Amino acid sequence: MTTQKGGIGLAVRVGDSVIALERPPVIIGHAAVGGRRESEGPLAADFDAVFLDTSFGEDSWEKAESAMQREALSRALAKASLKTGDLQAIFAGDLQNQCTASHYHLRNIGVPTIGLYGACSTMTESLMVASVFMESGGTERVAALTSSHFCSAERQFRFPLEYGGQRTPTAQWTATAAGAAILGRAESGVRITEVCPGRIVDKGICDINNMGACMAPAAADTLIRYFASTGKTPQDVGSIVTGDLGYVGSRLLCELMAEAGYPIADRHKDCGLMIYDRERQDVHAGGSGCGCSAGVLCGHLLRQMESGNIADLLIMSTGALMSPTLNQQGESIPGVAHLVHLQA
Amino acid sequence: MTTQKGGIGLAVRVGDSVIALERPPVIIGHAAVGGRRESEGPLAADFDAVFLDTSFGEDSWEKAESAMQREALSRALAKASLKTGDLQAIFAGDLQNQCTASHYHLRNIGVPTIGLYGACSTMTESLMVASVFMESGGTERVAALTSSHFCSAERQFRFPLEYGGQRTPTAQWTATAAGAAILGRAESGVRITEVCPGRIVDKGICDINNMGACMAPAAADTLIRYFASTGKTPQDVGSIVTGDLGYVGSRLLCELMAEAGYPIADRHKDCGLMIYDRERQDVHAGGSGCGCSAGVLCGHLLRQMESGNIADLLIMSTGALMSPTLNQQGESIPGVAHLVHLQA
Repeated sequence: MTTQKGGIGLAVRVGDSVIALERPPVIIGHAAVGGRRESEGPLAADFDAVFLDTSFGEDSWEKAESAMQREALSRALAKASLKTGDLQAIFAGDLQNQCTASHYHLRNIGVPTIGLYGACSTMTESLMVASVFMESGGTERVAALTSSHFCSAERQFRFPLEYGGQRTPTAQWTATAAGAAILGRAESGVRITEVCPGRIVDKGICDINNMGACMAPAAADTLIRYFASTGKTPQDVGSIVTGDLGYVGSRLLCELMAEAGYPIADRHKDCGLMIYDRERQDVHAGGSGCGCSAGVLCGHLLRQMESGNIADLLIMSTGALMSPTLNQQGESIPGVAHLVHLQA
Repeated sequence: MTTQKGGIGLAVRVGDSVIALERPPVIIGHAAVGGRRESEGPLAADFDAVFLDTSFGEDSWEKAESAMQREALSRALAKASLKTGDLQAIFAGDLQNQCTASHYHLRNIGVPTIGLYGACSTMTESLMVASVFMESGGTERVAALTSSHFCSAERQFRFPLEYGGQRTPTAQWTATAAGAAILGRAESGVRITEVCPGRIVDKGICDINNMGACMAPAAADTLIRYFASTGKTPQDVGSIVTGDLGYVGSRLLCELMAEAGYPIADRHKDCGLMIYDRERQDVHAGGSGCGCSAGVLCGHLLRQMESGNIADLLIMSTGALMSPTLNQQGESIPGVAHLVHLQA
């Protein structure tokens, strides 16, 4: 482990990969919103709002997803006792082409918006970039925000719902959920103390129905670099939670980590396995989508941290940077995973 | 003009909107790559490489765009006397769904990658986010990178090329170009001294063949906020260059700025009007695409700054966050423009 103070900068670079924040921003408000299936899952009680009509009163699935994201942001702001106009920047993105779920509801609200694309890694990507903006001194109150919607994602990435396609056992269910976190300054609360940006890793997997296998190597890459850079071992950290590896990807990650000498199976959980009851809810390998880790983090996990049940959390949303166009051209599917270290 | 030092942060927030960097990163390497039409335009000599076969030897337009971006990054790194592995992060995005032009060539190169989506605003969006990472102290050598390709963009956003659609007079021509800039620390060179993130502005324009009109209000919004926050007037700055407003959008921007009391017509240029000869090259309202401002900045403009012809430049890539899906659902097209202040 080596630390180096980059010039007169604030953040400390730990080893090759980790940025330690010297002024950790505090999550001063957070909210999660979900749809019908999420309201029937094990974490239902931790959502700030669930909507049984997953059209959210809109006339398209794309607009429904926007409405859900707007609701999450508005509830998170209310908990932070802030108004939209108090934000100095919003960091947002989603799975829709051109990130429209985010961009369309952020039109004309008067807050600078930095659009991100990291597929299902967007929740921790947005927290990471937002934290670095806070660390630089350039902003003091910002939001990180993302969402996914089963219906808008299915028709964009796979088949129209009306087709009624059979799902394979390795397939995952895109969560209909949104999460928002407001970062600010406060004496107490959950702090973001370290971030570790992910590298794009592609092991040649082409199966668009096996996202877990596409993403697990990227998750392992980030986690191994985190441990190598900080000199920590899995025993030094509390919980390790991944975004949406599901059943297949989670097993692969634990195998890869054990092989690398960092066994994590005793402390690893995956949002894709937490958000649904896999057997009862027929979601095959588990949940997925930007909204999966966004909903679980901004609903369940942050509540667990605030109530003292989790003191220390490495959260790593995982993204399959899957392009239907490139996949049809025979290309494999790259993955990425950005890590954020949260401390209560 | 009010300045406030945010806590013990480095960056200074100027007014409501501008982040002034106290340790301005230096552009230590930059390169622009273009296709055939760009090689026939007025700025041909300022491209580091032009390729008359715009397939770049690949078997699809999407992969061709990736190849072009890889070439730009590699040439920028060479000029900075760095290898890929010396980079601590890459900030990249493009117009392709899932930002695949960027993500696919960055697979397995071993550098953390932060994916951005800002449509054609990506060049200044990536420079802005990269600069803030530098300011935080968390990174010391990073790259900002983007591209567009006429053929991959046309079939994704409008019509397959084979259709031979008639173009309207307000339509713009997506540049086949890529630009890369390496940020680091150096005693001399072009510095990024201020950034101003853009707000998403939508004035209700639905015409997918008039991107200039969609983006001009967002460009005006950012520029007015820049002047209001810093207390400067257009006379206080050297050049003001927008990304790809083209002929229609540039006229609108100058009108909007004059109405707001900040006339800029005597010092404003637009990369979309610089990259092609509109009359001779039949590009209608001018160039567009992420590659337009990326190519003009990383080729022509930075050379002009290094040779002393431009000392002070406000560059603002402009993005139309246009979704064909939402447009077909009757929605209008939001715009965004991120500003970066460069000083020689």
